[in-house]
Amino acid sequence: MRTLDLIQRKRDGEELSAEEISFLVEGYTQDSIPDYQMASFLMAVYFAGMTDREVSTLTDIMIASGQRVDLSDLPGIKVDKHSTGGVGDKTSLVAAPIAASAGVTIPMISGRGLGHTGGTLDKLEAIPGFRTNLTIEEFKAQVAKLGLAFIGQTPEIAPADGKLYALRDATATVESIPLIASSIMSKKVAVGLDALVLDVKVGSGAFMKRQVDARRLAQMMVGIGRRLDKRVTALITDMSQPLGYAVGNALEVMEVSQTLQNAGPTDLTRLSLELAARMIFLAKVSKTIEEARELAQKQLLNGGGYHKFKQVIQAQGGNPQVLDRFELLPNATGVREISSPRGGYVSAIDAQYIGGACTLIGAGRDTKEAGIDPAVGVILEVKVGQKVESGGVLCRIYHTREDHLDEAAEMIEDAFRISANAPEERDIILEVVG
Amino acid sequence: MRTLDLIQRKRDGEELSAEEISFLVEGYTQDSIPDYQMASFLMAVYFAGMTDREVSTLTDIMIASGQRVDLSDLPGIKVDKHSTGGVGDKTSLVAAPIAASAGVTIPMISGRGLGHTGGTLDKLEAIPGFRTNLTIEEFKAQVAKLGLAFIGQTPEIAPADGKLYALRDATATVESIPLIASSIMSKKVAVGLDALVLDVKVGSGAFMKRQVDARRLAQMMVGIGRRLDKRVTALITDMSQPLGYAVGNALEVMEVSQTLQNAGPTDLTRLSLELAARMIFLAKVSKTIEEARELAQKQLLNGGGYHKFKQVIQAQGGNPQVLDRFELLPNATGVREISSPRGGYVSAIDAQYIGGACTLIGAGRDTKEAGIDPAVGVILEVKVGQKVESGGVLCRIYHTREDHLDEAAEMIEDAFRISANAPEERDIILEVVG
Repeated sequence: MRTLDLIQRKRDGEELSAEEISFLVEGYTQDSIPDYQMASFLMAVYFAGMTDREVSTLTDIMIASGQRVDLSDLPGIKVDKHSTGGVGDKTSLVAAPIAASAGVTIPMISGRGLGHTGGTLDKLEAIPGFRTNLTIEEFKAQVAKLGLAFIGQTPEIAPADGKLYALRDATATVESIPLIASSIMSKKVAVGLDALVLDVKVGSGAFMKRQVDARRLAQMMVGIGRRLDKRVTALITDMSQPLGYAVGNALEVMEVSQTLQNAGPTDLTRLSLELAARMIFLAKVSKTIEEARELAQKQLLNGGGYHKFKQVIQAQGGNPQVLDRFELLPNATGVREISSPRGGYVSAIDAQYIGGACTLIGAGRDTKEAGIDPAVGVILEVKVGQKVESGGVLCRIYHTREDHLDEAAEMIEDAFRISANAPEERDIILEVVG
Repeated sequence: MRTLDLIQRKRDGEELSAEEISFLVEGYTQDSIPDYQMASFLMAVYFAGMTDREVSTLTDIMIASGQRVDLSDLPGIKVDKHSTGGVGDKTSLVAAPIAASAGVTIPMISGRGLGHTGGTLDKLEAIPGFRTNLTIEEFKAQVAKLGLAFIGQTPEIAPADGKLYALRDATATVESIPLIASSIMSKKVAVGLDALVLDVKVGSGAFMKRQVDARRLAQMMVGIGRRLDKRVTALITDMSQPLGYAVGNALEVMEVSQTLQNAGPTDLTRLSLELAARMIFLAKVSKTIEEARELAQKQLLNGGGYHKFKQVIQAQGGNPQVLDRFELLPNATGVREISSPRGGYVSAIDAQYIGGACTLIGAGRDTKEAGIDPAVGVILEVKVGQKVESGGVLCRIYHTREDHLDEAAEMIEDAFRISANAPEERDIILEVVG
């Protein structure tokens, strides 16, 4: 078998066998296939795609490349929730506590933000003392006790994916649907989950800009799950404007607290409840999705989710009081208002621009090694569809340093579109797959 | 400027500016851009293509990456001929001597064979003593004296192309039309040519399998030439069966000798004469292409080309007597006949299979470092359209070793298609571009 022939056959649109995909991925992981051949193979995959069979094989190989976490001694059906990444997306911190408080077992493996998108680990670490680097034993013990624990990806899980992802990141091949699908699913299956709720984002702030691509990605992941006997449901949700009002790590924790007390933004509450309901349903805590929705709603209203999140913060070394006393969280030192140049309706708030501006002032990272400033970010004062006066406040930038602030402010101004007519309303949940 | 952004923009079908292409190619040549990023860029170019403007820029940058050969002190219009590569393609050794004997100045830069295709340098080096590694001074002196000299590509000419080609060869990106066009044209223009006749092969034995691709390549190269004020004409010619009867280095030199004495195969003679006529016409030795054809024909019939080739062999250290006494050339030690399994018409002789079989027995090289055996090869006894009896000889394999011989014989058997009906006749010259 020659690497060159396999690249060429993929380039020419042929399906590779399981043996051939193994040869490539194992060869690359073991350094017998050089970076440059894998890079051209990945770009060929970007253009020529992969069949469902190829994607399943690739997922299996990446799982087999590392350790599997054995969660079988934990009781019940283990469910996780994964988002493909967005701006202001703090649904994990709302939905997981609600579902856990309803009796779902959630061993949650989360990621960090990159580029304009945020990451759950970064948000949690905005809480002083919060530890995301639990050992597997600590992690399992906490899941057994509280039904929920948060941990980061470990290098022992699907290392082939880690190596491939680093190469994709440097070669403009991140945005390949089969490569995204196999990357997500390999990490999730390797940790021994039984079920998974996926939130596939679509819109300017997401990897997938078009709904047809988001649908294809969702279908591919649901298909991989089915072939591995996992229950998987994917929601396709709107990421054309930021989710909720807050973007930035500590600011988002504050918004999570408000939302868990039923005082959060409508879009964030709606999506978090639906994600929690899907987790409850896949975990077979309820018989129907309608029952699951009622249960999620109940756990929001009775403070069950709020209480659960406090327990988790406490268990992972943080101070649960931050949810009530926001001054205990890192706070910015300066605020700048962005106001509307004219009156009208907010017809768009480009999530990519808002996320990019937040990264510029330190809320996110451009490279994997960069540090972040948990205090800074943006709080929107309006959402798409709202009416504004000329000079009315569109949002506030919370910052700790002046550098890049003007540039960020300009990006944020560019993100808003103000029109004479009200835009059509649309639901945040666009489709359900699986 | 970030490499990643440029890869992504090319991937997304955007046109890159001259500055951006410079950044990439110069960065790669100077090792500031890693192999794996260039590999993914090349695969993106394979799929997304390049505009004429991008291809011209790329050509300019590759020329500027190395030394230019100054031929301006040589008198007259300097013309070269280049083939995109085929099986049994020895036209350079026929057309160039004929055109030189008619008064054309031909500083010919030739290549070596790779894979199933042969190379002019390898054929010349089958002549004992023939030196292709002339210094630039020796090369120019011989062109001034005889009107024709053969030399190999030197590492000083377009080194960026050399480095890129090696990477393309390992990443399945050789077959990209804009990359082929800029590679050929940069090397030709860097040596100070005024005019160029291109022989773009199409068919199973060529890089281009489809005429539409061959046409696009021809148009692209003619366009690059025009923007650089060079006169360029491209012939698109058939490479579905080997050219002439002989495939293999010494065997092809024998066929060249016969052809220069007007006793060669019809297809080889016809194409060589047309290529010679195009060189004569571009060099302005004749006023019209018709006159040029008459002159080429005359130089064939009066032995002018034959005599010129002998002078060139002598000048470059070879024994010109090899053209009359074939026993002075390397000769194979064994012969195996391949016979027809049934009677009928030869409807196809797959050139790629014949070339591949010759490479297997040592006539060509699979990797750039491999040595070759000048004595071995195949001589066809029939060409497409001819009638054969059952058991009649289709071709003979000339070999020096037994290893791979059975495998090669099987490939050769597979190359022949024998049908009940005579195939449609078609001219070897399919189109003229420019």
